[in-house]
Amino acid sequence: MVRTAARQPVPARRADAERNIAAILAAATRLLSADAAASVADIAKAAGVGRVTLYGHFPSREALLDAVLDHAVDVADAVLADESIDTAPAPEAMAGLLRSSWEVLDRHRRLFLAADRVLATERIREHHDRPLQRVERLIARGQRDGDFRTDLPLAWLVTTFFSIIHSAAQEREAGRLAPEEVEPVLIKTMLSLLSPAEG
Amino acid sequence: MVRTAARQPVPARRADAERNIAAILAAATRLLSADAAASVADIAKAAGVGRVTLYGHFPSREALLDAVLDHAVDVADAVLADESIDTAPAPEAMAGLLRSSWEVLDRHRRLFLAADRVLATERIREHHDRPLQRVERLIARGQRDGDFRTDLPLAWLVTTFFSIIHSAAQEREAGRLAPEEVEPVLIKTMLSLLSPAEG
Repeated sequence: MVRTAARQPVPARRADAERNIAAILAAATRLLSADAAASVADIAKAAGVGRVTLYGHFPSREALLDAVLDHAVDVADAVLADESIDTAPAPEAMAGLLRSSWEVLDRHRRLFLAADRVLATERIREHHDRPLQRVERLIARGQRDGDFRTDLPLAWLVTTFFSIIHSAAQEREAGRLAPEEVEPVLIKTMLSLLSPAEG
Repeated sequence: MVRTAARQPVPARRADAERNIAAILAAATRLLSADAAASVADIAKAAGVGRVTLYGHFPSREALLDAVLDHAVDVADAVLADESIDTAPAPEAMAGLLRSSWEVLDRHRRLFLAADRVLATERIREHHDRPLQRVERLIARGQRDGDFRTDLPLAWLVTTFFSIIHSAAQEREAGRLAPEEVEPVLIKTMLSLLSPAEG
């Protein structure tokens, strides 16, 4: 395919490249989610492309991980965007957000662990930025509407959202939370954390 | 000191060894808390003992880290034992527990990060076991007394205790929580998480 590429009209070559990139990102996401130490050679093999092709698109493991995280965050963002996050009453929107996002965040948790070994902390924070802003906007709206407490800092409440999802995913992995318990436990925990203090 | 040890009566030699061990553990705790990658050579130097003496007591970095964690957990346990954890009303005891333990847990957080690179996960869990049981006992008592919610699993509530302390310490480190905010934020967060659901 690579050898005949020069004879193809430009749009076809571009389509090949895009197909390869998509296959590499999908394979990398799958392999790195299962094992943070998955090798670039294994990823190329699973994507059905040669290592030369892979390195042509992603010159280093770092570049590949960066692209995989971008891709993962795009997927997460699309899921979050699907929510009536800006219109439903804040507690309802929060329950929906947890329901739709915890699995994506859990699926990508190992990706961030893999990235943690390679990318700088600040670069990882940047990747978290968009999902983080959606959560922050929702909690801020709940605070304005009187649905959520205002006696704890907004940034802290956003932190607990991610921290609690992270813990629940780990507890499920350790077998201390049944798969079907995760969702109701997360929603109950987060809503009692956010509800205005009595009196 | 090592060269003259053979001439000293046994109790004096034993006292020397105990002094050295105490100095090594104190230095290791201090250095590893500041930098998880601190070297054994630096720890020996800070403890004022030779590397041969250090390796005589702790034959490997793993053995040293194991002893340092044991020591840290003893300190944490002593702090927790000081609380009226079994007598005061559960919410009050929980506030006291957070107040007295979060700094110890924060101080030792990097030790666990350092250990994470060297010791097996199960060994690290064992070290957590005693403090974990105290927290579990307190939350179970609060549930029995009707002070704490029973609609979430006990193990999950214990997990959130550690997860939230961990998050607050990280937020303080990142400068997103002021040092004086940590305690009230932790207490407020944990007590609203534990309080029985309304209605």
